[in-house]
Amino acid sequence: MHTLKVGILGGGQLARMLAQSAQKMGLLVYVLCPKKTDPAAQVTSFWVRGSPKKVTDVTKFINSVDLLTFESENIPAEKILESKFQAKIFPNIQALSWLRQRSLQKSLLEDFFIPTSKFLNIKSKKDLIAASKLLKFPIVLKKNTGAYDGKGTYFINSIPDLNKFRISEDYIAEEKIAFKSEMAITFIRNQIGIIQTLPLVQTKQTDKRCDWVIGPCHHKDLKNLSIKVESLLNHLDYIGVITFELFDFKNKLYVNEVAPRVHNSAHHSQVSCNQSQFDLHWLAGLGKELPKNNFLNKKFSMLNLIGQKKPLLVSQLISDFSNAGSLHWYCKIQKPGRKLGHINSVKTPLKELLKIRQNALK
Amino acid sequence: MHTLKVGILGGGQLARMLAQSAQKMGLLVYVLCPKKTDPAAQVTSFWVRGSPKKVTDVTKFINSVDLLTFESENIPAEKILESKFQAKIFPNIQALSWLRQRSLQKSLLEDFFIPTSKFLNIKSKKDLIAASKLLKFPIVLKKNTGAYDGKGTYFINSIPDLNKFRISEDYIAEEKIAFKSEMAITFIRNQIGIIQTLPLVQTKQTDKRCDWVIGPCHHKDLKNLSIKVESLLNHLDYIGVITFELFDFKNKLYVNEVAPRVHNSAHHSQVSCNQSQFDLHWLAGLGKELPKNNFLNKKFSMLNLIGQKKPLLVSQLISDFSNAGSLHWYCKIQKPGRKLGHINSVKTPLKELLKIRQNALK
Repeated sequence: MHTLKVGILGGGQLARMLAQSAQKMGLLVYVLCPKKTDPAAQVTSFWVRGSPKKVTDVTKFINSVDLLTFESENIPAEKILESKFQAKIFPNIQALSWLRQRSLQKSLLEDFFIPTSKFLNIKSKKDLIAASKLLKFPIVLKKNTGAYDGKGTYFINSIPDLNKFRISEDYIAEEKIAFKSEMAITFIRNQIGIIQTLPLVQTKQTDKRCDWVIGPCHHKDLKNLSIKVESLLNHLDYIGVITFELFDFKNKLYVNEVAPRVHNSAHHSQVSCNQSQFDLHWLAGLGKELPKNNFLNKKFSMLNLIGQKKPLLVSQLISDFSNAGSLHWYCKIQKPGRKLGHINSVKTPLKELLKIRQNALK
Repeated sequence: MHTLKVGILGGGQLARMLAQSAQKMGLLVYVLCPKKTDPAAQVTSFWVRGSPKKVTDVTKFINSVDLLTFESENIPAEKILESKFQAKIFPNIQALSWLRQRSLQKSLLEDFFIPTSKFLNIKSKKDLIAASKLLKFPIVLKKNTGAYDGKGTYFINSIPDLNKFRISEDYIAEEKIAFKSEMAITFIRNQIGIIQTLPLVQTKQTDKRCDWVIGPCHHKDLKNLSIKVESLLNHLDYIGVITFELFDFKNKLYVNEVAPRVHNSAHHSQVSCNQSQFDLHWLAGLGKELPKNNFLNKKFSMLNLIGQKKPLLVSQLISDFSNAGSLHWYCKIQKPGRKLGHINSVKTPLKELLKIRQNALK
């Protein structure tokens, strides 16, 4: 029997969990990343040394697998588009190439009448000055490509802020939305265009990083938003998991950012659903039907474990959370601000989980 | 931060799932098995080539890790006992050595007044003839060591059967119990002697192999049995997961066999519990507290996928079960009668799962 070789570009925690999911289904998992000690490289015997950002490494890797996906939009999508491959790549690289450029991403949202903050392209200080007049302070500046986890996002609150800022590459400027809360919704689309969603969640960002997630949530604007998002995904012929980060503002849902990949806000699906976001991503990529009634109908919480000045002790975390939830630890080198692991729970309320974490991080 | 190196003797599906569980918790997983393509070797970058049955390989391997466990009782326990190791080995090798010998296992059960079928040690044809008179036909003959999945178990129904049988090594003979149903219960004991159990399950054997498992089940004799089993585990200073295969006979629970390791009948815990049997085994080995209220209180089913004459197509199985349950495929070389994977479900009744499987195996 032929066993399918699947490849993942990247060796971080998203790649690690994609790998673990694929292995559960019996796929042979190849991982392209620089180091043997990278989180995803540790969990497969088919690690390939190389950089997911380097065209030659990526090209060679794609030619060695049957099916390819990636954990990050920071890959040389435009260069990959120039070649033809036997392997099936999902989501398709054209969609990735558009969505990974914030300016194009915003335009796509506007094209499909999906509510999002007003924005302007910024290539020079002159553009920024013009934007400050049109959008009013405070302005959110985001790098056009390559930003993640709040890196590459800046707040310009005043003329002095503006004067200080050095425009070193392409940015977009957005008006800042005074949201009531942040939410997120994950869609999964398969090859025949069937689209399903994971439950709407509330997300809490602290220091520009996802802190915790709870759900299921409800919002009366969700149906309205979903119809438009589905149109966009059909237009892109998008296959796999895609997450829309949202602002709840004046009873309407605004799209903050789109992540064309598996996403931190959907990690809860590892315990709240029959098939996790990682499983669903592969099911879509494999050309399978998506499961119905996938959500197990329990309240859920997800808590991130973020690197502190003092290293976290995983042994202690295993103890602290063994009764309250399910620990995923990514085996990364610890640095302050890095996502090192997360806790899922369908049995312990958020408040209690936060208390345990607070004690653990003391 | 020091990351714990854990070692697993063996490369089969139990080792694979032990590895996956340990990786989730952030442990570095070393696997000792002969081939890089063995199920557990595929899911770690720390595979060590060697045989879990060869003393020199095992000794070297133990010296390279901090914490060691095994997936099978078929290891040279008595030889390992002769050496001292820095690594912590769990469950302890003395307990393993006793339990892996059926004759000693039965004696231990009797010592703790745990109901089990009558048995006799068989070393010669003369012993077998004597046993046939004492136990009456049909007799169950089991190899004293090294049997698994029905291999090494024989039914002697008559004098001609007896005459034909060649005694090539040590056996035990048991009376055959005309049970109403087969059940199983898994215990977990940690370093400070706290003992917990997974829910009692009903198990169905077909062709001497576990076919399916459902639960939670109840039995009025369970409390009585548990008290005695707990005494035995305390006596053995047993640490980790251990499963007791049971016969429900005349409203009493009889122990058929004891498996000092993670066990097929507890695979359901991957979806029915907050921490799976594999997680619990590591928690016990790491010296952690065991979680309270671990069971998520849903009815569950587990179905094995057994090798047929015609190879099973994993791609088809992924499709067939994506809606009904959660597939674990072990990436083994297929042979008729081999355990190749399993399906867990907390949402689909057994009857429906069996129907899907029947169609899949056509």
